Amino acid sequence: MRKICSLLVLLLAPITLLAQQAVWKEKAALSPEVHADRTVTFRLFAPKAESVQVRGDFLPIKKVVTPVGTFDGPGYADLERDAEGLWEWTSDVLRPDYYQYSLIVDGIKIIDPSNAYTVRDVANVANVFLVEGERADLYKVCDVPHGTVQRTWYNSATLACDRRVAIYLPPSYDGQKRFPVLYLLHGMGGDEDAWLTLGRTAQILDNLIASGAAEEMIVVMPNGNVDMQAGPAESVWNLRQPTMELEHTMEGTFEKHFPDLLSFVDSHYCTLADKEHRAIAGLSMGGYHSRNIAAEHPELFDYVGLFSTAIIKDADCPSQQHKLYWIGIGEDDFLYEPNVAYRALLDANNYRYIYYENDGGHIWINWRIYLTEFAPLLFK
Amino acid sequence: MRKICSLLVLLLAPITLLAQQAVWKEKAALSPEVHADRTVTFRLFAPKAESVQVRGDFLPIKKVVTPVGTFDGPGYADLERDAEGLWEWTSDVLRPDYYQYSLIVDGIKIIDPSNAYTVRDVANVANVFLVEGERADLYKVCDVPHGTVQRTWYNSATLACDRRVAIYLPPSYDGQKRFPVLYLLHGMGGDEDAWLTLGRTAQILDNLIASGAAEEMIVVMPNGNVDMQAGPAESVWNLRQPTMELEHTMEGTFEKHFPDLLSFVDSHYCTLADKEHRAIAGLSMGGYHSRNIAAEHPELFDYVGLFSTAIIKDADCPSQQHKLYWIGIGEDDFLYEPNVAYRALLDANNYRYIYYENDGGHIWINWRIYLTEFAPLLFK
Repeated sequence: MRKICSLLVLLLAPITLLAQQAVWKEKAALSPEVHADRTVTFRLFAPKAESVQVRGDFLPIKKVVTPVGTFDGPGYADLERDAEGLWEWTSDVLRPDYYQYSLIVDGIKIIDPSNAYTVRDVANVANVFLVEGERADLYKVCDVPHGTVQRTWYNSATLACDRRVAIYLPPSYDGQKRFPVLYLLHGMGGDEDAWLTLGRTAQILDNLIASGAAEEMIVVMPNGNVDMQAGPAESVWNLRQPTMELEHTMEGTFEKHFPDLLSFVDSHYCTLADKEHRAIAGLSMGGYHSRNIAAEHPELFDYVGLFSTAIIKDADCPSQQHKLYWIGIGEDDFLYEPNVAYRALLDANNYRYIYYENDGGHIWINWRIYLTEFAPLLFK
Repeated sequence: MRKICSLLVLLLAPITLLAQQAVWKEKAALSPEVHADRTVTFRLFAPKAESVQVRGDFLPIKKVVTPVGTFDGPGYADLERDAEGLWEWTSDVLRPDYYQYSLIVDGIKIIDPSNAYTVRDVANVANVFLVEGERADLYKVCDVPHGTVQRTWYNSATLACDRRVAIYLPPSYDGQKRFPVLYLLHGMGGDEDAWLTLGRTAQILDNLIASGAAEEMIVVMPNGNVDMQAGPAESVWNLRQPTMELEHTMEGTFEKHFPDLLSFVDSHYCTLADKEHRAIAGLSMGGYHSRNIAAEHPELFDYVGLFSTAIIKDADCPSQQHKLYWIGIGEDDFLYEPNVAYRALLDANNYRYIYYENDGGHIWINWRIYLTEFAPLLFK
């Protein structure tokens, strides 16, 4: 036993050292500290800094005016410095959610050195924290049966390339029993990882399935940008910095390629390959893709979900009624007005849909909510 | 077409805005810039900073003395400020590799705001960059057939819990053809994601298989810490900050649980379930686990790999000769001496092994090298 203890000390030493080096000359600051009353304290030891701010999606949005319109920018708050150089700020009581934030030190955006958890949203790396409770408990890893998450590749003859796709297989998936499929599409700038990392899809599905609120289903999350084979760092572009080369993204090519994906999924996974067991949903550009694919192939899908969807002004009303046509948007979303117009079109054509409106804008907080609302309605 | 263009502008605007917000008040700085001559320039616009350093595994290590021994610490270099507040430093010519770095601004470790690519190593988040060429081309995503990467869960009766495991399935895996299996174990402080994110295992296997250098194989990467069900953010501990609660990690419990993992893999995947088609390898603590499991179950493995392995001083020589017993370590590794002693023991017992020694210390640069050396020797 003593020899094992000595070895442990020996192996732990460089890790402890690493931890020390990780904080470098910093004073250890507990940050973020989520309190029992759901306020959150942010701290940074930065004695030489002139200003420290926290920016995040839990703070009231600030409107930003640009030549093409007014958009929601993230809110921010100023941390206060104590005599020793420890900066600190405590939030109001927050709604339970999975939040993003960054710290701004003398104008430089940094991740919180006390917080090891980050997400990448397009080219922006931010920290995350969780305020537990209510709906946010669906975003947690809970002690329930877990599905399997895969990243795999399929060939698209239409696009003449291999493409990466993320796939959630439900807990009972065993290669024998067949399951329904939800195709879940990301927005512009996102990629095949976005619904998993920012959208918490695996956790949401695990938890909805465990409670009996949703049916077991396969969730297929492809890359929606036809100019890319895969998201940043996952294609032959490797660590080229993410760019927005999006010229072909909304010209209909993704929609044209969709049968390649469908045929890959139905031939490689145990799917129930009929419209009664197939859904398509997406956010923003992914809603646009979903609307187009569902409109062109009403024979494929009984279920359609449009989350904060991008709508072309003079879009046609779908020619065929889907069993479920679900539209969700936040009242502060910059795409709110086109969605009002689209619903008016549906109404004028007596097209049945479910409408879900809440507060907030064009952000992941809302897209997670829409998934938790939409998934339980499927395949029943 | 015009309506699509307008929509594109509308959808792009908030992304552009996000990008602007991401750089906040910063001047856009290209960083890191990898030059054709394999020097690399780091830049940060920080007019108010008093000092900016870059720290990384491409810089000469600095010895750090602690009460329990002398360890390798990362090297660092000072950036120089220009009149406008742009800090800059250019490296010497670097060996091709996949490197980690952080910037240190007035003592605070930050990630480079110009670089969207990060990895987490234990609780330390760092940026990464790639210098292409030679062996490092094995670490790139190349235009070759790609395997599938899964994260799934298995039940361990021994540990009385579900545990997360990462699994690489080779490009030809189709649920019918059977493949050999490499069990690949991480070090202390690592988790089931470490060999994928830091070790570039999927890229290395894809590339070695594509060139014919390695056989197609399944790679199983479990979590080696029996006190955890899964790595940080992936267990019911959710976003609790990573800690080093390692008291049971090297007391033999992981080894005892191993048959649970083996039985899960052989019953859920198309494996060739015999010793001729089974290998086990690991780094540091994972080498220690591999050595113990292989010594206790010589009937299970023809191939054993010990990378920078942790060795108990008076370990016994394995009682049975494995077909391949591969030992790799860097001459600067703090575990070098115990490995010398272990090889002397093997020599004294006429135990056959292959020995690979290179420069450098106890770092991922070496563990990637060992994987690229070891994998081609398997199942032949």
